[in-house]
Amino acid sequence: MTASPFDHPFLSGLVGDDEIAPYFSAEADLRAMLSFEAALAKAEAAHGVLPGEAARKIAEACAGFSPDLASLRAATARDGVVVPDFIKQLRAAVGEEAGKSLHFGATSQDVIDTSLMIRLKAIAFLFAGRLSAIVKGLDALERLFGGNRLMGHTRMQAAIAITAADRLAAWRAPLTTYRDRLTEQNFPVQFGGAAGTLDKLGPQAAAVRASLAQELGLTDIGQWQSTRLVIADLAGLFASISGSLGKIGQDIALLAQAGDEIEMAGGGTSSAMAHKQNPVAAEVLVSLARFNATALSGIHQSLVHEQERSGAAWTLEWLLLPQMTMATAASLRLAGELAGNIKRLGSA
Amino acid sequence: MTASPFDHPFLSGLVGDDEIAPYFSAEADLRAMLSFEAALAKAEAAHGVLPGEAARKIAEACAGFSPDLASLRAATARDGVVVPDFIKQLRAAVGEEAGKSLHFGATSQDVIDTSLMIRLKAIAFLFAGRLSAIVKGLDALERLFGGNRLMGHTRMQAAIAITAADRLAAWRAPLTTYRDRLTEQNFPVQFGGAAGTLDKLGPQAAAVRASLAQELGLTDIGQWQSTRLVIADLAGLFASISGSLGKIGQDIALLAQAGDEIEMAGGGTSSAMAHKQNPVAAEVLVSLARFNATALSGIHQSLVHEQERSGAAWTLEWLLLPQMTMATAASLRLAGELAGNIKRLGSA
Amino acid sequence: MTASPFDHPFLSGLVGDDEIAPYFSAEADLRAMLSFEAALAKAEAAHGVLPGEAARKIAEACAGFSPDLASLRAATARDGVVVPDFIKQLRAAVGEEAGKSLHFGATSQDVIDTSLMIRLKAIAFLFAGRLSAIVKGLDALERLFGGNRLMGHTRMQAAIAITAADRLAAWRAPLTTYRDRLTEQNFPVQFGGAAGTLDKLGPQAAAVRASLAQELGLTDIGQWQSTRLVIADLAGLFASISGSLGKIGQDIALLAQAGDEIEMAGGGTSSAMAHKQNPVAAEVLVSLARFNATALSGIHQSLVHEQERSGAAWTLEWLLLPQMTMATAASLRLAGELAGNIKRLGSA
Amino acid sequence: MTASPFDHPFLSGLVGDDEIAPYFSAEADLRAMLSFEAALAKAEAAHGVLPGEAARKIAEACAGFSPDLASLRAATARDGVVVPDFIKQLRAAVGEEAGKSLHFGATSQDVIDTSLMIRLKAIAFLFAGRLSAIVKGLDALERLFGGNRLMGHTRMQAAIAITAADRLAAWRAPLTTYRDRLTEQNFPVQFGGAAGTLDKLGPQAAAVRASLAQELGLTDIGQWQSTRLVIADLAGLFASISGSLGKIGQDIALLAQAGDEIEMAGGGTSSAMAHKQNPVAAEVLVSLARFNATALSGIHQSLVHEQERSGAAWTLEWLLLPQMTMATAASLRLAGELAGNIKRLGSA
Repeated sequence: MTASPFDHPFLSGLVGDDEIAPYFSAEADLRAMLSFEAALAKAEAAHGVLPGEAARKIAEACAGFSPDLASLRAATARDGVVVPDFIKQLRAAVGEEAGKSLHFGATSQDVIDTSLMIRLKAIAFLFAGRLSAIVKGLDALERLFGGNRLMGHTRMQAAIAITAADRLAAWRAPLTTYRDRLTEQNFPVQFGGAAGTLDKLGPQAAAVRASLAQELGLTDIGQWQSTRLVIADLAGLFASISGSLGKIGQDIALLAQAGDEIEMAGGGTSSAMAHKQNPVAAEVLVSLARFNATALSGIHQSLVHEQERSGAAWTLEWLLLPQMTMATAASLRLAGELAGNIKRLGSA
Repeated sequence: MTASPFDHPFLSGLVGDDEIAPYFSAEADLRAMLSFEAALAKAEAAHGVLPGEAARKIAEACAGFSPDLASLRAATARDGVVVPDFIKQLRAAVGEEAGKSLHFGATSQDVIDTSLMIRLKAIAFLFAGRLSAIVKGLDALERLFGGNRLMGHTRMQAAIAITAADRLAAWRAPLTTYRDRLTEQNFPVQFGGAAGTLDKLGPQAAAVRASLAQELGLTDIGQWQSTRLVIADLAGLFASISGSLGKIGQDIALLAQAGDEIEMAGGGTSSAMAHKQNPVAAEVLVSLARFNATALSGIHQSLVHEQERSGAAWTLEWLLLPQMTMATAASLRLAGELAGNIKRLGSA
Repeated sequence: MTASPFDHPFLSGLVGDDEIAPYFSAEADLRAMLSFEAALAKAEAAHGVLPGEAARKIAEACAGFSPDLASLRAATARDGVVVPDFIKQLRAAVGEEAGKSLHFGATSQDVIDTSLMIRLKAIAFLFAGRLSAIVKGLDALERLFGGNRLMGHTRMQAAIAITAADRLAAWRAPLTTYRDRLTEQNFPVQFGGAAGTLDKLGPQAAAVRASLAQELGLTDIGQWQSTRLVIADLAGLFASISGSLGKIGQDIALLAQAGDEIEMAGGGTSSAMAHKQNPVAAEVLVSLARFNATALSGIHQSLVHEQERSGAAWTLEWLLLPQMTMATAASLRLAGELAGNIKRLGSA
Repeated sequence: MTASPFDHPFLSGLVGDDEIAPYFSAEADLRAMLSFEAALAKAEAAHGVLPGEAARKIAEACAGFSPDLASLRAATARDGVVVPDFIKQLRAAVGEEAGKSLHFGATSQDVIDTSLMIRLKAIAFLFAGRLSAIVKGLDALERLFGGNRLMGHTRMQAAIAITAADRLAAWRAPLTTYRDRLTEQNFPVQFGGAAGTLDKLGPQAAAVRASLAQELGLTDIGQWQSTRLVIADLAGLFASISGSLGKIGQDIALLAQAGDEIEMAGGGTSSAMAHKQNPVAAEVLVSLARFNATALSGIHQSLVHEQERSGAAWTLEWLLLPQMTMATAASLRLAGELAGNIKRLGSA
């Protein structure tokens, strides 16, 4: 047991995800923050808010900048957020003159929320692909075993016979919905300035925000610094995905316990009993579903986000959303493996 | 303190809702269940599954039927669900011959989930109306006080001045989104039979379900007996609504504490201090937001709905969703009152 | 589905509890509030804070008082708490002179928290008795079937054989702990006055509180108006009880599904399938466990109880704790029935 | 934002804890697992279950063993738990003959749960010390400012004047209770074998377990493989601690907002507004309290631990409890700093 199974030297083998984890590294976060600052300068220059020369120098500095992490850590302890020290360091790299143009009109939340959206957009694309793969896996099982007889169970009791196709259809139905939702999901830029009013940008505010969004491949909406529906929606979608995959896991674990209606490859071994083959992935899908169901509650608590920006509610999101994303990633990975490991479903 | 503040002799004054509560009475539930049975018989007769005469007798019986509640209670204790005894009683009222056609091909979950959807559809319409009224109230405040100066606060500290219009815009933004979502929300019929396969209806299954949905004013989708995304989506929407209203409540309570930037009518009195005027509605908005954020977690736990129907996961929904709806209703009622009670916002 | 299954005309057959529900009626609450006011007057008179004559008149009025519920409801809507109007009505019954002595030095929270403690103390006694009965039921099963062979399961797979006694021991172990905790639990009086300082009682404050506690059969501790550990502890104990009973329910549902290692009486019937016998009580134990696990989170959110008294955090408790108590009551009732319905466990 | 703020390159400056984090490293976990295996062999040898020579060889191997982490990771992915591969590697180090005596009669859960208890016992000791330090800090504030006037607030409104000592007393009261609970807390050994029956140890089972517990400095209780009250109790205690510290944080943030009744050193800076001093630590205490309140719900979900060992429920604990411990650690660290940073409370 360790503080973060998602990043852990050996537990990450079980609940980690090598493809998604890098998006939550400090490096990826900082890189996305640098993209924000460069794009902001470019957008502001395009609308005459900054000199073009300053924007070029900022872009150049951002391209090659590598911050002092120890300083960032100490400053985050003091400021509650990494941005003030990050900007201070970056400003030194940019140089005195252009440095005045850096981060102009922006606030910490603009940088951090936008960095998150940049990364979650990429992750959502990967998640949609994984859902497609799982759906294909279930389709393949249907072609192979769809006509097989399966005992339908209600209230944990044998009810009437159904087909394997019926069960597979129940597994698949929500997954296609989730794939569509991920594909259609908006990932908005965050840009509001100190108190959400873009007070320093005057009449160019909306145009700068639109250009910034376009530059970063994000949706242009008004600032959402204190209205966190974007976060709640994504967290709800992630929890729904892992919840539906948890249902598949629970079903497979129950099938594996009864034993005669499913044949699986790839179960786990036991330190005490050599004869056992444990449906590990199926069980872990249930764990991850319950983890996300638990964490979602905290994200909704953070909707009570007081005034123009709540340090308390915002920090709470940081403690929960990245992990919910990782749990969803692991769910998708395990569900894909599990579908591939079903060697028979139902009986002919 | 009592078991259910939402229905309580005096606490319901605070957190109840006279307009919405009746939809969760046993009477309303049973009435909607009778609508289901009558509409089902009619749809089945239209597609030649039942004799038309039987459908007419069933409709007639449903129109005037009043079940024995004591018997229903005892049977629910035994069966875990009210439907078997409800159908038994109703069958006696329908008569022997037509009774054979009653509830044909349906299962308990079809009746109960559909009854819930019928009622939630009506409630969603009322909620959308309330959101419109709150938005109008905020618009009115903007016309009156939008230009007033308000101190923007970030991290619980005075930041820079904003206008009352800025704060009102943050309050309003998610509410219009919720109104649109409620209006566009699908409320699907549930019809799957014993194990979700409509096994008794043969080739007429899809046509009967479509007619049933149309008759009841619900959306026609495949059965969702074990895929509970419909429930999770609604619960998430309700929790988001009360969460955003909780943010308004928290903001108003903080304004009322500071005291010089808001003027309110209608605060509460104290048993110990005659001079106080408490921002009761503002605080209760926070309580209701946190209640729904808490309950949402349980709804997501119930996505792990094993096999064709889980008594455990389904019963858990019953313990949470109606209350989440009531909490949302009370939030909307209180937010509307609160908006009306703001006599000044910001300073000229 | 209705707003409160615990109090519902027919769902209460399943998840209600006829013995415990009355403690959460408005009547029981008001009666306990009247006990508080009478005991307070008596304690204050004993220490010379009030004239003895006033205390007698107050006691007399409290004994026969029946408040106007409609007025209480309207006032609760305004004040956020029933006490100011309750005291106003009661004062009128007491008469002008003695009325000045009523509720002297107390605040709303003193009345309401103490009323809750009076009732929870009685409930805890009943819960301890129920736990003893369940333990006895498990003991009886051990005597009858303890030596039977039962297949041990780990990770939802057959592991090695154990005995029925081994399983029964795992079920019983936490129950005796809970019984002891309930028996040893302190139920403290709440008495702090307007801001927790008993400012009106001067040097007699501690002595009055001690007498008040003794009169009501509660523990005398310093006021806990804003430090809600008492509530969190009780909620945690209740959730632990229903959690451990949920484990028993889950085990029994899994045994009933496999079918050959348990024989049960008293299962539920199905509206679609006459041949089924559903392990309803076992499943509902799981639902109630997950309900309490969910609700506990909200109680812990309310530990963030700002300043001397938070309307938001306190109201949140009202929305959760009574229901958690009812869920625990239903769990204990169902577990007792279930233990009695096991006709065979394991195989000889 | 990154997957685990508790271990993150810069966010750990804010919510990490350098003293406690090492207890949740893979290294510390493996070291404690090696202690378990060595102590088990010694205990079994002492009771004649193993040859003394084998126990000596095992102890020797455990002292110097350093496992192949890549292999552990791959195996955890397959087995759901690190132990089978860990034992396989360790057995190779121990040598063929003594290797047969390694892990004799034990199962994965024995090793992992005991490793956790060893580390949590050490952590609880440190937590108790931190609570003492915070209490001392509050005592010092009371000596300095206890007589100062502070406006008491109820329902977010000025109520009546209290003293700084009154507020400090409310902050302190639960902390001394927690310190006592941590000190008196039992940390039990886990030892049950494959299905909890210590089937391989025969009549020596209880004696071996007692010796094992003594060797490790843990309490000797019967196995609790499927009865997880130990975990729920600890999680509840941690959530209560961070909840009470969150109340202090909320109070301080509110005082800092009003501004005239508190003077603080050490607030955070802003990237947008040079003039601000943010009460960062106070806000983060609220975040951590809400995080633990959220996570506690999942721990209680895992009380529904089916059969002899549930992979699903057990893995869920791993996803939550270490982080709850880290959140508690950070709360205690921040509360200590915050108490030290109060330069004035109330007004003279």
